Amino acid sequence: MSTPSRKPDVDDLPKERLRLWLKLLKASRSIEDEVRRRLRNNYGSTLPRFDVLSALDRSTDGLKMGEISKLLRVTNGNITGIVDKLTEEGLALRVSIPDDRRAHLVRLTQKGKEVFRNHAHAHEAWINDILSGLDELDVDGMNLRLDQLNAALEELHND
Amino acid sequence: MSTPSRKPDVDDLPKERLRLWLKLLKASRSIEDEVRRRLRNNYGSTLPRFDVLSALDRSTDGLKMGEISKLLRVTNGNITGIVDKLTEEGLALRVSIPDDRRAHLVRLTQKGKEVFRNHAHAHEAWINDILSGLDELDVDGMNLRLDQLNAALEELHND
Repeated sequence: MSTPSRKPDVDDLPKERLRLWLKLLKASRSIEDEVRRRLRNNYGSTLPRFDVLSALDRSTDGLKMGEISKLLRVTNGNITGIVDKLTEEGLALRVSIPDDRRAHLVRLTQKGKEVFRNHAHAHEAWINDILSGLDELDVDGMNLRLDQLNAALEELHND
Repeated sequence: MSTPSRKPDVDDLPKERLRLWLKLLKASRSIEDEVRRRLRNNYGSTLPRFDVLSALDRSTDGLKMGEISKLLRVTNGNITGIVDKLTEEGLALRVSIPDDRRAHLVRLTQKGKEVFRNHAHAHEAWINDILSGLDELDVDGMNLRLDQLNAALEELHND
């Protein structure tokens, strides 16, 4: 009986794609952990709080609670605690909506905008530091492929 | 007064690295969502349950509850519910440890191993499908850079 011949490298692509996914997940979680650690150590802040500030900063007129939780894909309950805290600290305020007595808009105050600007600036510097192992060519190469991947993922969701 | 001159492309690397991080996070979340959806639709299963099965399958002698939650980085409480369910379904069992009356090892049964093998096989096919927009060259290029990135991230944690 002869030894079964082994195909060299053929059909390795599924395994390589699986490896890619595991590496991607690992990198993504490590970076998130590192950002979480720096937010805590430098600002006594958290990732969800940073994300809420960021969402509010990007909106022009403010956001309803439901809009924030939809953007951040977390439950309303978690957002409520964060917004309460931001309001207490004078970083955000609740504005009533003329035509809707039951809902209100959450907006950043001037102080809130300044605080977020500081955090966002630090965040960019941290990411630059954390990703410093990748040079311009690496970064461009990955950005290009991640664009491809994200476009394919969006198509998948629209199917 | 003259218009301030804009530097072309110089110092763009920090911004590009930030973009890379946001794209990476987006891709990672989308893929996780898609896997979550397919686990639910095809097996009525969840990602944490799949992760517990996977951790148990990789261990030779079984794992303590604390080891599972450490590997998966979730609280013991969440793991307990999943292990209880797996045990009820005959996919896992609890084995007492001779020298430790308070702890026990969780192990997969033969049926549990078979079920996980099926899920893992499907999981690999899903990832191959989800990442089908990336060819061999793309996958190799990204794997290489993610290795660099993950190595740099590990150094960061050891500092």
